[in-house]
Order: sequence, then C-alpha cells, then structure tokens
Amino acid sequence: MGKFLRINTSDNSFTFEETPETYAGLGGRALTSKMILDEVPATCHPLGKQNKLIFAPGILSGSPAADSGRMSAGAKSPLTGGIKESNAGGLVSQKLARLGITALVLEGKPTTDEYSMIVINKDGVSILPAKELAGKGNYDVMEALWDQYGKNVGVLSIGQAGEQCLKGASINQADMNGRPGRAHGRGGLGAVMGSKKIKAIVVDDKGAGRLKMKDPEAFKAANKRWVEMLRKHPVTGEGLPALGTAVLVNVINESGTLPTQNFRSGRFDNAQDISGETMADTIESRGGIPSEACHPGCVIKCSNVYHDKEGKYLTSGFEYETIWAFGAHTMIKKLDDIAMLDRLCDDFGLDTIEMGVTIGVAMEGGMIPWGDGKAAVELLSKIGTYENEGKIIGNGAAFTGDALGVDRIPVVKKQALPAYDPRSCKGVGVTYATTPMGADHTAGYGVTANILGVGGTVDPLKKEGNIELSQGLQIATAAIDAAGLCLFVAFAVLDNEDGLPTIVEMLNAQHGLELTPDDVLELGKSILNNELEFNKKAGFTKVDDQLPEMFTEEFPPHNTKWDFSTEELSKTLSF
Amino acid sequence: MGKFLRINTSDNSFTFEETPETYAGLGGRALTSKMILDEVPATCHPLGKQNKLIFAPGILSGSPAADSGRMSAGAKSPLTGGIKESNAGGLVSQKLARLGITALVLEGKPTTDEYSMIVINKDGVSILPAKELAGKGNYDVMEALWDQYGKNVGVLSIGQAGEQCLKGASINQADMNGRPGRAHGRGGLGAVMGSKKIKAIVVDDKGAGRLKMKDPEAFKAANKRWVEMLRKHPVTGEGLPALGTAVLVNVINESGTLPTQNFRSGRFDNAQDISGETMADTIESRGGIPSEACHPGCVIKCSNVYHDKEGKYLTSGFEYETIWAFGAHTMIKKLDDIAMLDRLCDDFGLDTIEMGVTIGVAMEGGMIPWGDGKAAVELLSKIGTYENEGKIIGNGAAFTGDALGVDRIPVVKKQALPAYDPRSCKGVGVTYATTPMGADHTAGYGVTANILGVGGTVDPLKKEGNIELSQGLQIATAAIDAAGLCLFVAFAVLDNEDGLPTIVEMLNAQHGLELTPDDVLELGKSILNNELEFNKKAGFTKVDDQLPEMFTEEFPPHNTKWDFSTEELSKTLSF
Repeated sequence: MGKFLRINTSDNSFTFEETPETYAGLGGRALTSKMILDEVPATCHPLGKQNKLIFAPGILSGSPAADSGRMSAGAKSPLTGGIKESNAGGLVSQKLARLGITALVLEGKPTTDEYSMIVINKDGVSILPAKELAGKGNYDVMEALWDQYGKNVGVLSIGQAGEQCLKGASINQADMNGRPGRAHGRGGLGAVMGSKKIKAIVVDDKGAGRLKMKDPEAFKAANKRWVEMLRKHPVTGEGLPALGTAVLVNVINESGTLPTQNFRSGRFDNAQDISGETMADTIESRGGIPSEACHPGCVIKCSNVYHDKEGKYLTSGFEYETIWAFGAHTMIKKLDDIAMLDRLCDDFGLDTIEMGVTIGVAMEGGMIPWGDGKAAVELLSKIGTYENEGKIIGNGAAFTGDALGVDRIPVVKKQALPAYDPRSCKGVGVTYATTPMGADHTAGYGVTANILGVGGTVDPLKKEGNIELSQGLQIATAAIDAAGLCLFVAFAVLDNEDGLPTIVEMLNAQHGLELTPDDVLELGKSILNNELEFNKKAGFTKVDDQLPEMFTEEFPPHNTKWDFSTEELSKTLSF
Repeated sequence: MGKFLRINTSDNSFTFEETPETYAGLGGRALTSKMILDEVPATCHPLGKQNKLIFAPGILSGSPAADSGRMSAGAKSPLTGGIKESNAGGLVSQKLARLGITALVLEGKPTTDEYSMIVINKDGVSILPAKELAGKGNYDVMEALWDQYGKNVGVLSIGQAGEQCLKGASINQADMNGRPGRAHGRGGLGAVMGSKKIKAIVVDDKGAGRLKMKDPEAFKAANKRWVEMLRKHPVTGEGLPALGTAVLVNVINESGTLPTQNFRSGRFDNAQDISGETMADTIESRGGIPSEACHPGCVIKCSNVYHDKEGKYLTSGFEYETIWAFGAHTMIKKLDDIAMLDRLCDDFGLDTIEMGVTIGVAMEGGMIPWGDGKAAVELLSKIGTYENEGKIIGNGAAFTGDALGVDRIPVVKKQALPAYDPRSCKGVGVTYATTPMGADHTAGYGVTANILGVGGTVDPLKKEGNIELSQGLQIATAAIDAAGLCLFVAFAVLDNEDGLPTIVEMLNAQHGLELTPDDVLELGKSILNNELEFNKKAGFTKVDDQLPEMFTEEFPPHNTKWDFSTEELSKTLSF
C-alpha cells in the first residue's frame, strides 16, 4: 500500500504517512471524495485554511492498463460550494502512482503573498520559492519547468486565473508535449490551489521503477482483451481517433440538442463551420496533429494539436465541449476565434465549459455582442491582465449573470451546463440536476442511450427511463473515475458484456484482490453517497437538485420542456 | 377592509381586489411575508417574472398613532435568495393606507427595455412611460416628480443601481423634503423593482380623507399615553432626538464592539472623528438640521440634514450604521467623505450598510487602500456610470469578496453584517445568524440588553441568555414591523409595562378588534414561521443559520470568539 504525502502550505512543511487502513484499495475519485468528507469541514470557506486540495491517481494508474492515466483532484469547490472531483489526463497520475503516492494533499494556507512550487521525486519532496513563475500563464510555466526538470516530468500548474482565486480557475496538466492542453477544469479547483499559493507541482518518477503486479500474467491477458475491446468499438476505435470529441458537433446538432444562443434552440445554423469534420480538415491542411493521446497508454487518442493560419501551433486538446461553449452557445462561428479562446483558457488556467457559457451569459447581459469572436477574445484576455472585468467573467456563468442582472443563467449548483440541452436529451438533464458535482455531463453521460445508441436506447424527449439511465451511468462513472480510467472507455464497456469483468480482472491482478463486478458497482454507490453526505452537511437540499427556471421554456426544434419534478429527480441517487 | 392593487408589469395592466379574508387584519411585514409565501415560488429567480414586489402599509399606518408611518416592502431577495422584508419611513405608507390600499403588488416582468412609472391617487391608477426618468439618480427623479405632482406626494423610486438589478439596490422613499434620504435598503429589493422596469411610484392621497376609527376616543387616549411614553424614555426622548442614531458611535466603540477594519477589532482609534457628537457639531456649525422626522407623526425625530463645508445641502438621513460601515469598518475617518458616500448611495439607490461593508471587503481584496475616502467615493461612483467595477461592488459584500478571492467576508445568507460585532455583542450575533432576513440588526436588536441596559441586561460576551434575548426580540420586532411602527419605539416598550398594552389598545380602537398582548406576540411568531417556511422551500437549512468562519477569530479588546453551535442556534426560532 502506498503513502499519503501531506503538504502543509501554512509553513511549507510536509509529511509522508502510510495510507490508513480505512482508505485501503481506494484511488481516484473514491479516495478524494472520502478524504474530503472525512477531513474538510463542509461549511468552511473554500478558499480558507480548512479546505484541502487532494490529488489521487486512479486505482489502475501507473499500470500498463490502457487508458488508465487519469488523476482525480478533489476539494470543496469555490464554484459550487459542494464537493468536487475533477479528473484529467497528463503525466502526473502515473508518475505519482509509480512513486507510491496514493494521495497528495495540500492543506493549510500561508499568510504570505509569495508563491511556492513543489517538486516530488523518488528522493523526496522540495518546496521552493516560485517568484519567477508568479504572474505567468501555464504555457510559460510549463515550458520553464520542462526546461529545468527535463521533458519527462509531470507538471500541474495554475495560471493567472488560479492566482486570482477565480471560480472558473482550472488546474492544468502538461500534456505529452509539455503544453497545458489538459485540465482539471471544472469547479474552480485552480482557485483552491491559488489560495494555498502553490503555483506548480513537478512530479518526476525517474528511477522509481515499474509498478509491481500481484499477478502479471493475468493482468497482461486482461489488458490485451481490454485494448482489443477499445479498438473494436466504433466510437473509441474510429469516431474519436478520427475527429476527436468534436465528432459530436454535427451529431448533436442533427439531433436538435446543440444549445444555441444561450439555450434558445437546439440547432446552430453555422454548425458546419465548427464541426469535427471542418476541424479535422483545418488541422490537416495546416500541419497540425488530428489525433493524439492525453497520457501514455491511451489507445483512443481523441486529443489533437490545432495550428493557426500561418501553420504555427495555436492550441491543443481542442474539444467538443469547448467548441460548443465558445461556438454555438455564443453564436461565434469562426473556428480560429474559438481555438484562440481555448488557448487563452489553457494559458490563464480556466475551465473552457464554464468560460464559454459565461461569455454567452455576458452576451445575454449586453456586455459584448452575440457572435463577436474578437470581442470575446478581448474580454477573456482581461483575466490574464488582472482587470476587474476579468474578475467578473473569471468567476463563471452564475456570477456573471448575477453581475449583469440576467435571469437566464444555465447552471446547476452554480456550475455551467455543458453541451447537450437537457430538454431534448433528458438522460443527461437528470445527471445535470442530480449529480453532487453541479451540472456535469461526465458524471452520467446519458447522451449514450439518448442519442448515440450506445448501451441501449432511451427516448431523449420523454421522461420514461431517463432517471434510471442517469442512475446507472452515475454509479458506473464514479467507479470508472476511481479506477483512473478515461470516461470514454464507457462506450466500449456499455456495449460489451465482457467490459466490466475485464476491468475487474485488471484490478484484481494488479492489487491481488478478489473483487466482483458487483463490488465495483457498490464502490460507485459508496462514492456517490459520500459526496451526497458532504453536500448535505454543506447545506444542499433537494431544491439544489433541479434545473433553473429557464428550462421550463419550450426548446425548438423538438419543442420539449424540462418537466421532471424535484420529487421525481430525488429518486435518481436514492439507493 | 381595504383593497389589494395588483399591477401586472408584463402588460402594464392593473386590478383592484378586495383584501381576501385570509389576509384580514394583516399589514406591513405580516402581510408581505404571508403573500410572498403564498404567491411566490420559493425557487424562482428573484429577477424573473414569478417574483413579486409587495408594498404594505403597517396595520396602524395612516392613523395618528405616533411613529406609525413605516411601510414594508417584501419579495424574494436577489441578495439572499430568501424572503425579504425591508421597511422604511417616508410618506407612502400613510398615503396608501388613506387610499384604502392594504397591498400594492408588482407582478410579472416586461419584455421591453422601456421603464414605466405608476401614479396612484383617489381616482385610480395610471401607468405611464418613464423614459425621461430612466438613467437618473433618485435626487433628480424625486425632484422631477415633486415638481410635476406637487410637494405633498409620496414617492418610491430606484436609481441607477436598481436599473442595473444590483443586489445592493434599495428602493428609496422621498423624505418630508422630497429627498431620497429614506430607503427600503436591505436585500436588494431595488433590483426586483428594476427587473420589472418600474422606475418610480407616486402616491397622492389628496381628497382621500382621514382614516376612519372604530373607536376614536379610545384611540386618542391610547395615543396620548403612547406619545408620552416615547417622549419620556431617555433613548427616544433625548438621545435619538439630540444626536440621531449616530449617538451610538461612541457608545459602541466604548463597549469594544464597533467592528473596525473589516471586523478585526472592536475599537476605532478615530471614533471621535465620526461620532454623533462631532456630527451634531458639524451640522450645527454649517446650518444643517440636527433632528428631523422621517414621516409625519414621528415624535423621535432621529433623522437629520447634513451640509457640506460651504453650508450647502449634502445628504440627509445620515445614520449610525452608515457612518460605521463607511467609517470604522473601512478606516475612513473624514465625516465629509462618509457623508458623500451616503449621498451617492441615496442617489444611486443603494443600501448603505451593504455598500459600506462591501467597500471594506474591496479594501481587504486590495481594490483600493484602507481608509482612503476619496478612492471609495471614486469606486462607488462607478455604479452611477454603469461601469463594470460598479457591477462588482454594487452586488454587495459577498459578491465582491468572491470576485476578489477574499475569504474574510462578514455576511450571513450573503447579507452584510451591521455595526455591532457578534463576538462581543452576542445577542445581536444570534439575530444575525438566525433571522430569515440574513444578517440584520433590526430583526432582533440584542444591543438593547447587551449594551444599552434597555429591557434588562444580558452579558454581551457570554452565551448565556442571548438565544432567549434574540428570540424575544425577533418575535416582538416582527409584530412591530407588522404594525408599521418605527423599530425605535421598542426602547420605550421594553422599559415600560404599559408599552405593549398601549399598542394593542390603538390597534383595537382603530380596527374594532379585541386583541390581547398575547395575540400580538402570536402574530410575531406566525410572521417568523411564514418566513422560515419560505426559506426552507427555497433550500435554506440550519447550515445557513450560522456566522461565517472568520468569526472564530479572537476579537479584541475583549478577545472573545463566536462560539454558538448550529445546534444551539437552531433553538432561537423554534416555537
């Protein structure tokens, strides 16, 4: 069993402790959520000394299991006021796991204004002044740290947004090229890191050796089946590798559920301009990279590198949600503008979903005109220059709507809704409403059976079956997040009877366990119950498990409304 | 029984209806809170079409009862998200009562951007375009309306803050000189009026005649005793008439509970510079008015008119809470700067407590320097010019703290704490924590027995007796707010066995009732229960009935901490 590394930012001391028995076998979201419930007072200020920021590799992280390199970050969220888990790819998860660190915990809060950085390697921990990195964006920070520590280290860092403790702030991870294209995006965890004055964390596993397997042969066999399964499924084997997640623009627009102009309709006239097909053509013609992994061992490779008109690097990890948020939602139709907005988010350290939705809300409130990409770039840039306008929009959609007196604000628990309208994709709508995370598609991606025909079919326009769909997906997702697996493996798992058993075999072979598939689902339930308990202690009630008033408006083209009662929704996570 | 006047702002239509039987005998806070509970969906957006803004004269309003001219305004609060009652003096309450209007209800929400104004007189209601008033401050609006409708009409209006739907926005009432010195200040009700695009309301009772008394002789006799009681008490008969509420600056500073520099200590080195004594001297030497009534029939006359160095009118209704908030709390020590900040709040239509506390939080977050009055004036002025900085601070202390990443934000239910530190005046601290209104001293003014020796004595530094003190005061205050009486009558009532019976006699004589003092206290309880029920439906829990983390800091000079558990506090309003 590995160790917890606790760093007390009040005095920059640290301790290693053996992972306590009560946390044995936990990882990723299972570990961060349980530790937060156990250690963080639910009513504390998210930016105060009592909050903790916890990073935990998934249970399979560090192993050769395909697509197992996701790491969970958890804390009380400055955005939602509830518990938060946000996971990302990159290099840190696998390196922490190989260093035998099951959880990296940032505690306390310094009284100084000076930033520090943390370097973790096989010899121990250094906490160093980070004066020269302060005020810099993630691109500069990561370049400087790769220059200093070598091009093989994992890096976590915050940009100007995290330094300002903005609710939209992400914690970014260096991708495999040392660029901040991956992010623990949702829930403002960058603000928690900023409040603790930690600018960056470098993780170097040089000399740590491979993870020891309890049963290497069984693991190898299971992982072989696992890789095949991922490669054979049309979504993980073809759609995502070819066009990235942006493959969804046309699909979701076609299905009439691409929220356009702040959730006024489900079809965007200019969807073709921002589609995955257009993006892939653009990338190809300019010499970018259409398909790339976000962490070693990924076989799906849905990430990418997008070049500008001059053929120079502009951004990477350019995703469907980002393209939707800065595109259809705001009516911006130039992909290059959207790519620049994505780059700024990565550089300043901001959640692209939150920021895109925020820009749309700012348009709703008359701050800038609808569809004006240049104005959006200018507005977003004010976060990087610490201007007061940046302190409005950098705090997210709910905050910006409040600043501007807007009453159409698409948030749940103050977190912005993602790229699928809940009125015509009700399975994901149930997830938005009920997940302890605030509106989050990744918490229970009902788009699968609602629209993609994966894991069965459930009518996206009707209520029937969608509570159950969301429930099943939320439980499975929590377990996947605990394992450190990429959520996209779910496409293959949902369509394959051998999916879950194969994951369980890898878990058992790695750790010498005797888990059954039912145990894994029980783990998912226990994670959700821990999260719900934290939120209850923080003051959340069933009133918070509902979509805002604006979704009672009729939504074209299907002209459906949000019609779940709070009572109905309360069944989703009752188990 | 009077009538409800309902104005549907969606189409600017209106209806009169007989006051329904279920609301018979209710007025002021009793009526607004019950109607909001009954008619406003608790989870609606406060700026949306489902919220209602309700004005109700007190039960005694319109009668000759001394100090009975206060009017309640109620709605779901944009600041707290809970129910709100905010009452003010001025001319409207008595005039509405004489016109036989028990409640004026603004409903719906227009889709247009055009402002309207409402004129109510004995002949009926006119809803007129208010294009020429839009964008103007309350001083200009009230001057224009008095010019147009005569110097005897009551006026309610919003300034630039309400137009921007800011959470700190007040609804101002013309005082007896037609100036916006009186305000329905707390809870952002000006934003609700702004969301409904009503810029002003003119109430003219010309020709309406006097209110009919059921028993004029009994009323006259009771009112005579009532007036004597108010005149004889040292607070209502001497302290308040002589120095206004600012008499408290030295008293509260001396007792070590004047929150200084964002609640860091209880004594302000420059308290003398901003004291009631200094203010009275300044007013006198410059030809201002040291003592003035806020509504006809007031015998306490705690209001005032403050002139500038040139002897010209600067502001009026210059109160202790305002002086504290812009003074000790922010370390600004020049009374003239504070008076200018008060004037700007009245003109833009802003709650002075919320804004003063916000300026202090902005100083905490580094937006402007501590104690810099000129910088504060400049920053506050940005609300009047619709600048983005104004959209930060105009939304109040919690919002501004969030914008700046500050974790010391003195609010309960997002409403700023008033001028008495809860750690060394625990009776009022219990009220801050538990009143359904959000932090509000007027909801249960424990300063009485804690510091002023009125209505007994309870140690302000210890827990013992302070839950009970707050409970009793909250019940009594709710009843006083329902009667339309000025809260300051409580000083006399608490020290006089004949106080409550005299009020009851006036109620009975006016309306032909047979109430007992117990009935009046039951009314107080029922008001609180209605408000608690609304808040529960809106998602509030006992977690919200607590002070923020910062109050666990030790507070000099008494070095006390806030030490009530949520469990202890939950007993306050359990009856």
